[in-house]
Amino acid sequence: MRGEFDLIREYFASHGGTRYVPLGIGDDCAIMTPPPDRDVAVTTDTQNEGIHFFRGTDPKLLGYKSLLVNISDLAAMGAEPWCFTLSLTIPDSSEKFLRPFSEGLFSLASRCHMGLIGGNTSKGPLSVTIEAFGLLPKGRALRRDGARAGDLIYVTGDLGAPGLYVEAGYGRVRVRDEELHDLCIKSMEIQPRHDFAGELLQKDLSACAIDISDGVVGDLKHILKRSRLGARLDLNALPQASELGEFVKDPDKRMELAAFGGGDYELLFTSPSDRAKDVMLLSGSMGVKVSQIGTITTGSFEILKDGKIVEPAMRPFEHF
Amino acid sequence: MRGEFDLIREYFASHGGTRYVPLGIGDDCAIMTPPPDRDVAVTTDTQNEGIHFFRGTDPKLLGYKSLLVNISDLAAMGAEPWCFTLSLTIPDSSEKFLRPFSEGLFSLASRCHMGLIGGNTSKGPLSVTIEAFGLLPKGRALRRDGARAGDLIYVTGDLGAPGLYVEAGYGRVRVRDEELHDLCIKSMEIQPRHDFAGELLQKDLSACAIDISDGVVGDLKHILKRSRLGARLDLNALPQASELGEFVKDPDKRMELAAFGGGDYELLFTSPSDRAKDVMLLSGSMGVKVSQIGTITTGSFEILKDGKIVEPAMRPFEHF
Repeated sequence: MRGEFDLIREYFASHGGTRYVPLGIGDDCAIMTPPPDRDVAVTTDTQNEGIHFFRGTDPKLLGYKSLLVNISDLAAMGAEPWCFTLSLTIPDSSEKFLRPFSEGLFSLASRCHMGLIGGNTSKGPLSVTIEAFGLLPKGRALRRDGARAGDLIYVTGDLGAPGLYVEAGYGRVRVRDEELHDLCIKSMEIQPRHDFAGELLQKDLSACAIDISDGVVGDLKHILKRSRLGARLDLNALPQASELGEFVKDPDKRMELAAFGGGDYELLFTSPSDRAKDVMLLSGSMGVKVSQIGTITTGSFEILKDGKIVEPAMRPFEHF
Repeated sequence: MRGEFDLIREYFASHGGTRYVPLGIGDDCAIMTPPPDRDVAVTTDTQNEGIHFFRGTDPKLLGYKSLLVNISDLAAMGAEPWCFTLSLTIPDSSEKFLRPFSEGLFSLASRCHMGLIGGNTSKGPLSVTIEAFGLLPKGRALRRDGARAGDLIYVTGDLGAPGLYVEAGYGRVRVRDEELHDLCIKSMEIQPRHDFAGELLQKDLSACAIDISDGVVGDLKHILKRSRLGARLDLNALPQASELGEFVKDPDKRMELAAFGGGDYELLFTSPSDRAKDVMLLSGSMGVKVSQIGTITTGSFEILKDGKIVEPAMRPFEHF
């Protein structure tokens, strides 16, 4: 959309057309023509050096994760990934950065059949803002206000590895250099959950989801606030990443990282209790691990540990 | 879309619903339902401190201009402004910044009937990325590849004041402090041209436009490249902002600032020569100054000054 974009066109514009996008990169705007039986889901997320990722992070992982966090938001609505724009601020336009960054970005974009339809680049401290678009069946979506009393609460995958990586990066958990590198990859090359979420919506197994960015406790709060309900969350039921057992001795600390660490980008969703069998069948058929971690209630938000209500010590991640 | 957005919700979320947006701020995604007889135009632009604006710039002007540059892209397609998302990176979430920034932003958004439908905030060096959406009649738009040989080339408004402001800001043109302040306001509180552009499209007076960000010469080049045509551009016909006469003695320097200064966000468009009278009638009825500055040709790109082809000394603005 801006002239400067020409400069890195070789890295970003060679990826063909995008369905329902008659005009992509190269004009003042892109033009989108979503099918009349679909709604459009739109989200945006920024990754800033020193805040969302450590200085010196592999550009390939950064490219991957910058798109992943947006796909994760699309998944949280049950939307099918469609296309995206990229706003890239970089200190200089070096090939050393741009080549691996675009490789990481497009490895995930291709897998999700997403086209890049526009963007801009400018000079400044490293910062990546992606705006992603998804398609939804008209009038339907997984929404934060869609929980119902009695719904079971589920989470996909395992929790805590990204939180552990941050702790290790700051030296608060001791790991060797190559272990830190592996943790970095694990916390950035996260598997997107849009396929599974799309099936939850299609099969009417859920009306409510959120992706875990702030930590499962913090994100469940967002659901409860919007749904005007309470919950009972069992910390012992949280599925812990194997790395927690490997590097963290204190079982309380492991539980805290799984509950509050954040950055997991797994799917937190609710489903009526009489559909529990169907949820588990879907989990099995799609090969996506699903754990039941609590129940939606009409009461307050209760967090249980070893069967007792606890007041958690750690607070959810906040920037300010 | 992210939890942190809650913090500045008081500044950004009190602005009511947006048409065709059943779900706005507060979930993982916003949901858009554009009418079936419309296409969606989408654009994004970033404003970075020290690159796109000087450190210490009035946050109110920054809020205004961050949206204006995006509306200018919508105008360049002939699209009607619809809604936008905001990705804001700020060093700290001080009221001293957020209050005037949101005032400037929403003063323009309200005037253009645009709703804020999502976004995120994070910590870091001051940077504003806005993604703006507009509505187009299905299958129609002003496009860079829409010029035809024989079309007349027009520009709205006057040129050169934003270029002069940059020169003065760097001390290359001497002005007094209060004059610099006035130049700053003039170069940031620019009038959007979407109404005029929309009429050009509706009345079929144009098929081709671009907004002037890089300077009229640089932006005309984008049109010529995409339309695979040449042009004859008359530097003497460029409408110069009154400030150029006031602060710049050298007439060649004045002409250069009007031609290459950039940041004008006026509309550069082409129109068949037999519609010239209609263009001028529209100009008069809408109170938008329009100047004819050249002609689209099948030849090369010729820049004329005092009737002679010149090789310009100054290059268009580039970040890298």
